[in-house]
Amino acid sequence: MPALPLSDSRPSPAIADLFRRVRQDSVSLGKPLSDADATVQSMPDASPAKWHLAHTTWFFETMVLAPNVSDYRPFDQSFNYLFNSYYETVGERHPRPKRGMITRPDLATIFAYREHVDAAVEALLEQGAGEEISTLVELGCHHEQQHQELLLTDILHLFAQNPLRPAYKDPQPLAVGASEADPVQYKSFEGGIVEIGHDGQGFAFDSEGPRHRTLIEPFRLADRLVTNGEWMEFMADGGYRDPLLWLSAGWATILTEGWDRPFYWEERDGEHFTMTLRGAQPVDPAAPVTHVSYFEADAFATWAGRRLPSEAEWEHVAASCPMAGNFADSGHLRPRPAQNAAGAGEIRQMFGDVWEWTRSPFAPYPRFKPVEGAVGEYNGKFMCGQFVLRGGSCATPGGHIRPTYRNFFPPDARWQFSGLRLAEDA
Amino acid sequence: MPALPLSDSRPSPAIADLFRRVRQDSVSLGKPLSDADATVQSMPDASPAKWHLAHTTWFFETMVLAPNVSDYRPFDQSFNYLFNSYYETVGERHPRPKRGMITRPDLATIFAYREHVDAAVEALLEQGAGEEISTLVELGCHHEQQHQELLLTDILHLFAQNPLRPAYKDPQPLAVGASEADPVQYKSFEGGIVEIGHDGQGFAFDSEGPRHRTLIEPFRLADRLVTNGEWMEFMADGGYRDPLLWLSAGWATILTEGWDRPFYWEERDGEHFTMTLRGAQPVDPAAPVTHVSYFEADAFATWAGRRLPSEAEWEHVAASCPMAGNFADSGHLRPRPAQNAAGAGEIRQMFGDVWEWTRSPFAPYPRFKPVEGAVGEYNGKFMCGQFVLRGGSCATPGGHIRPTYRNFFPPDARWQFSGLRLAEDA
Amino acid sequence: MPALPLSDSRPSPAIADLFRRVRQDSVSLGKPLSDADATVQSMPDASPAKWHLAHTTWFFETMVLAPNVSDYRPFDQSFNYLFNSYYETVGERHPRPKRGMITRPDLATIFAYREHVDAAVEALLEQGAGEEISTLVELGCHHEQQHQELLLTDILHLFAQNPLRPAYKDPQPLAVGASEADPVQYKSFEGGIVEIGHDGQGFAFDSEGPRHRTLIEPFRLADRLVTNGEWMEFMADGGYRDPLLWLSAGWATILTEGWDRPFYWEERDGEHFTMTLRGAQPVDPAAPVTHVSYFEADAFATWAGRRLPSEAEWEHVAASCPMAGNFADSGHLRPRPAQNAAGAGEIRQMFGDVWEWTRSPFAPYPRFKPVEGAVGEYNGKFMCGQFVLRGGSCATPGGHIRPTYRNFFPPDARWQFSGLRLAEDA
Amino acid sequence: MPALPLSDSRPSPAIADLFRRVRQDSVSLGKPLSDADATVQSMPDASPAKWHLAHTTWFFETMVLAPNVSDYRPFDQSFNYLFNSYYETVGERHPRPKRGMITRPDLATIFAYREHVDAAVEALLEQGAGEEISTLVELGCHHEQQHQELLLTDILHLFAQNPLRPAYKDPQPLAVGASEADPVQYKSFEGGIVEIGHDGQGFAFDSEGPRHRTLIEPFRLADRLVTNGEWMEFMADGGYRDPLLWLSAGWATILTEGWDRPFYWEERDGEHFTMTLRGAQPVDPAAPVTHVSYFEADAFATWAGRRLPSEAEWEHVAASCPMAGNFADSGHLRPRPAQNAAGAGEIRQMFGDVWEWTRSPFAPYPRFKPVEGAVGEYNGKFMCGQFVLRGGSCATPGGHIRPTYRNFFPPDARWQFSGLRLAEDA
Repeated sequence: MPALPLSDSRPSPAIADLFRRVRQDSVSLGKPLSDADATVQSMPDASPAKWHLAHTTWFFETMVLAPNVSDYRPFDQSFNYLFNSYYETVGERHPRPKRGMITRPDLATIFAYREHVDAAVEALLEQGAGEEISTLVELGCHHEQQHQELLLTDILHLFAQNPLRPAYKDPQPLAVGASEADPVQYKSFEGGIVEIGHDGQGFAFDSEGPRHRTLIEPFRLADRLVTNGEWMEFMADGGYRDPLLWLSAGWATILTEGWDRPFYWEERDGEHFTMTLRGAQPVDPAAPVTHVSYFEADAFATWAGRRLPSEAEWEHVAASCPMAGNFADSGHLRPRPAQNAAGAGEIRQMFGDVWEWTRSPFAPYPRFKPVEGAVGEYNGKFMCGQFVLRGGSCATPGGHIRPTYRNFFPPDARWQFSGLRLAEDA
Repeated sequence: MPALPLSDSRPSPAIADLFRRVRQDSVSLGKPLSDADATVQSMPDASPAKWHLAHTTWFFETMVLAPNVSDYRPFDQSFNYLFNSYYETVGERHPRPKRGMITRPDLATIFAYREHVDAAVEALLEQGAGEEISTLVELGCHHEQQHQELLLTDILHLFAQNPLRPAYKDPQPLAVGASEADPVQYKSFEGGIVEIGHDGQGFAFDSEGPRHRTLIEPFRLADRLVTNGEWMEFMADGGYRDPLLWLSAGWATILTEGWDRPFYWEERDGEHFTMTLRGAQPVDPAAPVTHVSYFEADAFATWAGRRLPSEAEWEHVAASCPMAGNFADSGHLRPRPAQNAAGAGEIRQMFGDVWEWTRSPFAPYPRFKPVEGAVGEYNGKFMCGQFVLRGGSCATPGGHIRPTYRNFFPPDARWQFSGLRLAEDA
Repeated sequence: MPALPLSDSRPSPAIADLFRRVRQDSVSLGKPLSDADATVQSMPDASPAKWHLAHTTWFFETMVLAPNVSDYRPFDQSFNYLFNSYYETVGERHPRPKRGMITRPDLATIFAYREHVDAAVEALLEQGAGEEISTLVELGCHHEQQHQELLLTDILHLFAQNPLRPAYKDPQPLAVGASEADPVQYKSFEGGIVEIGHDGQGFAFDSEGPRHRTLIEPFRLADRLVTNGEWMEFMADGGYRDPLLWLSAGWATILTEGWDRPFYWEERDGEHFTMTLRGAQPVDPAAPVTHVSYFEADAFATWAGRRLPSEAEWEHVAASCPMAGNFADSGHLRPRPAQNAAGAGEIRQMFGDVWEWTRSPFAPYPRFKPVEGAVGEYNGKFMCGQFVLRGGSCATPGGHIRPTYRNFFPPDARWQFSGLRLAEDA
Repeated sequence: MPALPLSDSRPSPAIADLFRRVRQDSVSLGKPLSDADATVQSMPDASPAKWHLAHTTWFFETMVLAPNVSDYRPFDQSFNYLFNSYYETVGERHPRPKRGMITRPDLATIFAYREHVDAAVEALLEQGAGEEISTLVELGCHHEQQHQELLLTDILHLFAQNPLRPAYKDPQPLAVGASEADPVQYKSFEGGIVEIGHDGQGFAFDSEGPRHRTLIEPFRLADRLVTNGEWMEFMADGGYRDPLLWLSAGWATILTEGWDRPFYWEERDGEHFTMTLRGAQPVDPAAPVTHVSYFEADAFATWAGRRLPSEAEWEHVAASCPMAGNFADSGHLRPRPAQNAAGAGEIRQMFGDVWEWTRSPFAPYPRFKPVEGAVGEYNGKFMCGQFVLRGGSCATPGGHIRPTYRNFFPPDARWQFSGLRLAEDA
């Protein structure tokens, strides 16, 4: 799900650097995968890794090269049909639930496709592309970063379907720190008219703006994320069996799907394990809970006598939190216990641990207008039935996190690195 | 879907009057129905008329009589199972999609059940019931008024399934006035901090409060509803065939369901007819369009280059609109063309014509807290995946309309009297 | 499911008698029903009683009156659309799963429709109708008898959905005889070439012929039906939990549907009850088990180390069993314990107790040819995915039972009065 | 779907030869596939090639090695769970619809698994294994041959989902002979008591026996298969649009699935193409039609005024037809026009062209009894809802075809090489 930029201020050389780095990151992500790993689609909501690697390339070919390089020779004419995602304006496309049928072209061919397109884009940028092209390339890079995270969450989902629980990365567990998280503290914030939304400095997707005033009431926000240990208490207290804790649609989902724990948890001889990108690993009680749906996050908050923050509250707080150092490595791939983060007392784990469900339905900001044309077929069309998540996860590329970023998923989605932080009225 | 009152100020005699009137209104609504009409369930979202008549009675029996009348003898013990709706706290209940299987008790027995309960409630009120009981009876009356409207929309849906298109009421068409609506005018409103939500004077459901401040931007609002004639233009312009006008989920629904016109419209020899409570009738181009979903309302607004109002905008305007005289008759059962309403130039058709879709997802107001106990199992649990509608329809009982009222339905619901009014940023 | 006659030998007065009796029987069956009872459709496989009463009448109107009475005035033009069942050649029809939406016309109107058509048919017969008309009327009568049984099984299914378990007939239980059935005995039959199928003497449906030779091997047949008591042993022995007893499709059904007992059984305080046309009643261990599917009958036979008989074996034995006296009353509505039937040692309970599943898929006899025209749209089109049942049940009209009769249902059907008798190779 | 042998007469060396040849054939079939090709499952009814290659190996490991080689070391303990198919008696197994999730182990590992097991089986056979082991190995070879054909049909299905229509084999079309088939001739056969079923000489599956007498009536059988050209006539004559030609369940399938041509046909610029193992190729009018369901075969026969043969009729004729030379090459992979077969006038194309639908439901022969134990979980459990096909197809391994062979599929299955031959009553 790409989105229109709100601004374009980067000079062309910086864009070329960005392009090279982002494109290389995707290749690195694809390297541990076999041809089969990269081909299979584990559910309609997920896409094959090969598709992510090709679709992001298709974006540059279709949006940047085709209109701007007169003698550009497409790598393969059939790829426009195969790797278009949902752009109704760009013609027919392969049906989403059948993306996993495309065993050919194989992964090596997709890497060759990437090189073909990369060379053409780099040549174009070297010629000193104008502002319009730079903007599109920058958009394409951020679009690709979105797919980098999806590639990881989709591979995790695929590997979780395999009874062998294969590891995407080095299967050795990270050293687990303290087995218990610091006690949570609630920090107070005053109400009033605040400004949220992107201000146009640097890249942002269309739905992050316009920056605008909004009114918030005094509230308190937890200084850290809800942990696995706390989630076990919720489970032990019958949290998944008490309909009064749940939204009506959430309870119906519980009954239909038989949910009784976070998505990737399984019990082995009385101990909780969870599927991770490093294979099945024991659940760390001090680490943030993840792979929970909005329904579960909301029920947990009700059980705890609190609520989820609104996205305005979250962003208001986040604007004053330092991001630096939090996620130097774009691939740590596991949320870290809070005690490893900045010192207690401050608001911690805001960026790069887990996507935090907010209580805010994904809706347009005041005066939001989708842009015209193919690149405008974006976030606006998803503003129905989804909730906003904030903060970025351990699978989010480092340069892709910012306080105004609005991620969104339906309330039953669980395969993302999604967790929660509690709030309450002051 | 009943909901907790925000206040209780009415004296007991007034409550007794309200009770008698509301209970009698339901009986009147049931009278044109045969036993079979009142028994069949036409879809899982609808309920049989008999069920509406019994469930509202069950509410008084369970919430008012059982706890407060020591020697109360239930009319029939099995009715608690049969006519509970969704109150998880009040025990097991008959599955919703099987409500139409209950051919016995018959309609006459349900009327007898109503008389049995009415007599007991009236006796209780005559004794001078205290505030708590008055509050519950008032809540029960408003709850019943909600079901009165649902009874009508559900019967309309049932009769629309019958190829004979039977009429619930006198099948003669109402006289149609001018065949064209007045040109629409957009009236400007200033932005700023406004107050919305119920202030506790008189009855309201829990989700209508608390009254609170909110910030709105300057905007313009259409002075009348979108008409059938305008909808025909949308259809003729390919509105149902252009994916760029639609939310992603809306377009998926179009493809799955084959929608290409409002819910009850059908074409006969090139002319549009619509199913109504008076049978199939020609579509009146000057009357407000109705039985359209949120998806359709949103697509229409996009096509028209405008947007739906937020519920705050709507309520801010509605607070200064006169309601009097608009719906003296609680059963006119057909939205009226705008030229029959108050003079052009003012904002018209705000109350009692059609439920107006807003762009606002149904979400809790700041500091909203559901009440404890069985009567608290209400609106809060539906705050997910639904959009707010405002204003009340031609099927809404007269005393049940107020500016703060928040109705809500999923974005694909079409069987209510739902239409729209356009807005735009100023 | 009507079917073409193989012969027509009855003189017209006899046909008129048959017509009057059959038509009156249907009215009697409809009398205990309320308008609502007669309107609701409890599942797609069942039809409303009103529909059965109207459809059988539509058959006479469309097949007999319309082509043969020049000045015949249809009772209501819309009924051709409403009450056609599946005859593709007779035009559009109301979709089967929506038969329960037709609350109007009401039951009284359907009775009036019946009288209108009866008068016209009787007048036609009095004029001395020729052979073709007599044949069609006779066919219509047998068609109607099929629907009489379906009316009863469908009402039973509807009433079983009602938690109140209403009784169609006098709810007092029949006196239960001995609590144990006689021990079953297996009677030997020689193999060889035998003749089966209808020989053209008297009425039969098309699929009952042609009479033809077939080769059977020596076998033994149980002298009575499997009882409820034996079924309880099967259940107690884990019959519903051992996949090795089941056909693959049967086991899949078990897992999907959660079957663990006959269709209408429920446990109350440790005792088995079953829903009947006289309401919920204790299960009689000596009575034949009924409302079991082919899957269950086959699994039971495997568990018992035996098999179901083929239809040729069954018919070969049945041809020499007396039918007289077995079912003088066409509506006893409950299968009787075997000890009440003819003396032990003989083959008992062949006619009018329960439909007996055979191991034979419903397939055409050698040289079978469907007849041309609308009345030919019959049994032939169902010769796929169904198994043959023989013998007739306690709900089958008396004159509708004969040794050559081939009933058929899919292997998961349970709402008919279907049971079984065991066989084994000699 | 393996099945119990009826006999075991082969000496051990012959079995060892058979084993080596069959095992090598599977490897050859797998060679053209990429890791991804071999991993993806294109529909629940199909299995990945990797699964076929592993499951057939699992059979030898579990049924032959584990019970008979005391120090046998399984290649990988987890494979018992992954590659069990449906044997309830051998423990838990991976759910069938999730077979395509197993990206690891990869294809190379599966080939290594095969070598590991092959070495152990060959060592066992060299020791001079007794009759029981020889029997099991022979059974395993025939089981594997069944999966060889399925591997091809499943790969064809997978490649047909890919818009690029990749070729499994050399994409050059075979030379097409005459564009028109010889006129069909019907050859007469006398009725009477005949013997069918396997007589115990050589290998056969359990359901092929016991050999038994059956009675057939005089009939005529077409001397060749129905051709693509004849199928085009059926289509042009509205065959897919006339409900009177179809079984009721078949017509429902037509409406739901939108069938209007054989499974793999598509139109390009007015010409019919069909997907084959050599990629998309023009339809050859003289070649036998294939990839049609029983529903379509039956409707075609009705349209042609004829019928499908019974399996007894087919086998009776087949017993006197020469098989030699018909399919020396086990992988020609495309049915050949009849004029290329033995001279006109005789019954042609009986073996190795397409599987021929018969009108016979798959049912047990007289005195059929499934064998005890895990290998007995076979054909018997599928004797419900399926129809018998005879003759073998162009994808059937040469040594796997015999006159008594009973293949079976549900009436809507189309992805096998299934066609038809007509018959009529004499």
